[in-house]
Amino acid sequence: MESQAHPSDRAGLEYASWRTASADALDRRVAWLEEHGHGGTWVPQDLGGGREYEFTDPDGHVFRLYFDTEAYVAPEGKRPVIPVNFQAYAGRGANVRHVDHLNLLARDVRANRRFWEEGFGLRTYEIIELPDGAEAGAWMSATIQGHELIYTQERTSGSARLHHFAYLVDTREEVLRAAEIFADARIHIEAGPSRHTAIQGFYLYTREPGGNRIEVANGGYLVFAPDREPYVWTAEEWATKPGWGAPIPPEFHIYGTPDVAE
Amino acid sequence: MESQAHPSDRAGLEYASWRTASADALDRRVAWLEEHGHGGTWVPQDLGGGREYEFTDPDGHVFRLYFDTEAYVAPEGKRPVIPVNFQAYAGRGANVRHVDHLNLLARDVRANRRFWEEGFGLRTYEIIELPDGAEAGAWMSATIQGHELIYTQERTSGSARLHHFAYLVDTREEVLRAAEIFADARIHIEAGPSRHTAIQGFYLYTREPGGNRIEVANGGYLVFAPDREPYVWTAEEWATKPGWGAPIPPEFHIYGTPDVAE
Amino acid sequence: MESQAHPSDRAGLEYASWRTASADALDRRVAWLEEHGHGGTWVPQDLGGGREYEFTDPDGHVFRLYFDTEAYVAPEGKRPVIPVNFQAYAGRGANVRHVDHLNLLARDVRANRRFWEEGFGLRTYEIIELPDGAEAGAWMSATIQGHELIYTQERTSGSARLHHFAYLVDTREEVLRAAEIFADARIHIEAGPSRHTAIQGFYLYTREPGGNRIEVANGGYLVFAPDREPYVWTAEEWATKPGWGAPIPPEFHIYGTPDVAE
Amino acid sequence: MESQAHPSDRAGLEYASWRTASADALDRRVAWLEEHGHGGTWVPQDLGGGREYEFTDPDGHVFRLYFDTEAYVAPEGKRPVIPVNFQAYAGRGANVRHVDHLNLLARDVRANRRFWEEGFGLRTYEIIELPDGAEAGAWMSATIQGHELIYTQERTSGSARLHHFAYLVDTREEVLRAAEIFADARIHIEAGPSRHTAIQGFYLYTREPGGNRIEVANGGYLVFAPDREPYVWTAEEWATKPGWGAPIPPEFHIYGTPDVAE
Repeated sequence: MESQAHPSDRAGLEYASWRTASADALDRRVAWLEEHGHGGTWVPQDLGGGREYEFTDPDGHVFRLYFDTEAYVAPEGKRPVIPVNFQAYAGRGANVRHVDHLNLLARDVRANRRFWEEGFGLRTYEIIELPDGAEAGAWMSATIQGHELIYTQERTSGSARLHHFAYLVDTREEVLRAAEIFADARIHIEAGPSRHTAIQGFYLYTREPGGNRIEVANGGYLVFAPDREPYVWTAEEWATKPGWGAPIPPEFHIYGTPDVAE
Repeated sequence: MESQAHPSDRAGLEYASWRTASADALDRRVAWLEEHGHGGTWVPQDLGGGREYEFTDPDGHVFRLYFDTEAYVAPEGKRPVIPVNFQAYAGRGANVRHVDHLNLLARDVRANRRFWEEGFGLRTYEIIELPDGAEAGAWMSATIQGHELIYTQERTSGSARLHHFAYLVDTREEVLRAAEIFADARIHIEAGPSRHTAIQGFYLYTREPGGNRIEVANGGYLVFAPDREPYVWTAEEWATKPGWGAPIPPEFHIYGTPDVAE
Repeated sequence: MESQAHPSDRAGLEYASWRTASADALDRRVAWLEEHGHGGTWVPQDLGGGREYEFTDPDGHVFRLYFDTEAYVAPEGKRPVIPVNFQAYAGRGANVRHVDHLNLLARDVRANRRFWEEGFGLRTYEIIELPDGAEAGAWMSATIQGHELIYTQERTSGSARLHHFAYLVDTREEVLRAAEIFADARIHIEAGPSRHTAIQGFYLYTREPGGNRIEVANGGYLVFAPDREPYVWTAEEWATKPGWGAPIPPEFHIYGTPDVAE
Repeated sequence: MESQAHPSDRAGLEYASWRTASADALDRRVAWLEEHGHGGTWVPQDLGGGREYEFTDPDGHVFRLYFDTEAYVAPEGKRPVIPVNFQAYAGRGANVRHVDHLNLLARDVRANRRFWEEGFGLRTYEIIELPDGAEAGAWMSATIQGHELIYTQERTSGSARLHHFAYLVDTREEVLRAAEIFADARIHIEAGPSRHTAIQGFYLYTREPGGNRIEVANGGYLVFAPDREPYVWTAEEWATKPGWGAPIPPEFHIYGTPDVAE
């Protein structure tokens, strides 16, 4: 999943982009979207001169698909000593590496999950199912990583909202280090450092000055079995909080961006 | 501080022992205790044939002083490869190394703090002072370690109660590892893993089956300045929770052993 | 890659097994092997009643392919609190999680690399190329993980030899912890702990009592770009040892199992 | 031990300063020095208007003693959120905290060790003794920390030379992180990261541009027993390299500053 920042007058996700495995794969995905009533439009690419297709998921979040891209070349002074690396180790601040996953809020988690499974072959590794059959959360991935795209339940009247996006750091120790940096920089820590029950990544949450929630994340399991079925949590089982049991503040489950004043 | 476990029919601290710097130092401490109205009694040593002096702090906790001791010799099969170590690396369970500090509850924190400062030369590194002038907490040490003996406020009708004792692990990562072990062993985590504001150690709290609260701890600063004064927190400043801000459950400040049903 | 241990009268790899993505994928792979002169034989499965196909790579290492399998169910007492986990956190010894990768020695690294690329779609992430055009090493994977199967140059008269297989631990700290355990257990450390230049995993090498070299490993990069080409090191560039530069003993590049007395 | 940098036209230690426990202690130490033939001179203090006494150890290294000092107050923008800290967490580069210990080379290790033991009450925790009775190394401390001042054998014709000084980082993970930073900054790593056998600290060595060897260090044991005798390694026992066994390059035992061309 590629991420780009665009200036905006309000917080939230303008769009998220996925890179396809090939130019053909891009055409096949667009064909599927158009056949299944999710057709969008081709747009000029922000970076590079290629083509990009914009569409929305069932909850209204905007996504783009592209294949063409231009590899980053580190400028003089940032060249890594090991040439396969993207750039020299920065070692500054929280020292995040790349966007790890995206958590969106959806009024109908199941509909959004099926959209990605059927249209894009994403695999779902964990689901929380409520007593009424609705889903409260779904953790999906295009790879063996436990989560790349997460939907959790929208509990307000809003739609197309962002819960958070996560930046990866190399180790759990670096999540702890980020907490030290946040504390001394007077950046409010919303939750963590602790370990999630779903996918089991190590987390730290804050909000950037614009209001979007950001996670500094490390870990989460990898899935090697080709036939691994999603694990479906009942609400009852989920409520027992198996794991470390660190308390999460109530607004964690409500707040998203754009913010919905209610 | 030496720790020994004795069977008992209820939770709490039977006694804590301090080893003096020399046999003479033991006599000098006993003289001070007797001169200042804290006289106790000589008792036979539990381990070894030496002498041990039993007395109480102002809140009624029982302590012992001794100098004679017998060095532990690791049995065959537990001999460390580096002979200065006490025994081979065990690498089992939470893999705690030794008792790190003791946190007692006191009705009058200041009185207990002064007792140790005046009688034993302990240094106090941090104090929380309430608006009425009473102290809510005091972190003391016989060494450069930020805490070896802590008093925090007794909020029940009890006395001579234990808040917790802490076992040291080598790294913060091992505190996280202990949390994984506790979770899978269905051992309730009362608080943490997180970092304390006072002394800044990394913590994880649980209770042993008998009810005593136990901390798995790492870190906390060392104090090198010979003239470092205690840092005195006002209640107001303390309430801002500078640091990581992880929530602590309310019973953390109430529960101690023996438990006081109120 | 699945690993099973079989008793043998000499060290080395009896065979390594790959699980295919589906039963059909198994048939397709077997068809490719037979079409390309690498045909083997169907054998009864060691575990479970399914079918398994045995064949050799160009250097003579024995492999098996299978799809049928039986999921492990943790016995009472080892059940994990989070049900997606395979079993409760053991926290014993080096606490390895699963086999991470396999490093084989080959007289012709390129031939073996192409075999897996063409027949199985493995991706190669790094290659060392010698001045004469031969390859000294190739790091391959069936996933986004930087290495699952590695070939390095056979420098003796042997063939079908094992260089090492690697067990994964969760963190670099656990690699350090394994070094402590090995030291106190008088288990010789052949190399490490340090970080590799290729794929950049954190390593520790020893040999099990039977003589096979074992790595305790953590890390190594993940590859997200679908069009990432292998990075090809020249021998000259490789010789500069970009990275941490920890010395590797000469026998590391010679010794493999079965051992070849020369 | 306080450290200050002074410009110089060649590498080496200009002087090292110790702060005494009190003004009286300063006078007592000076009296001891003068009584025992090590008398030096009072010099104006570099920082602050106090007095400072300069003298040499038996090998000729220059030391200073002082008590008066001025506490550092972090400027606006570097104020720590927890007021007992010296300044906000920097999180930049190798992120070293403070000077941890000093390793000097001495032609007669024993003479230097006894000088500090007798004159200053330093405790020695480990010694390496050669077959001819000379000492090859001595690890000393003014506190419970395993090492604050180390003497190792001078193997050249030089005298008053520095082997290295060590900066502390908070965790072993930060030593590994420093190695990543050094590698990408093309700073040569002389040894490590690995763990020392003596005192068991985790180390990483490089040289600063002026030529002085610098260690990035974490760990090392603390000594709580008041009657702990130095552990005396025989040369034979030491040669077995109990511990992790990482190779140290030969020049590590020769090179010091000022460099001695031989």
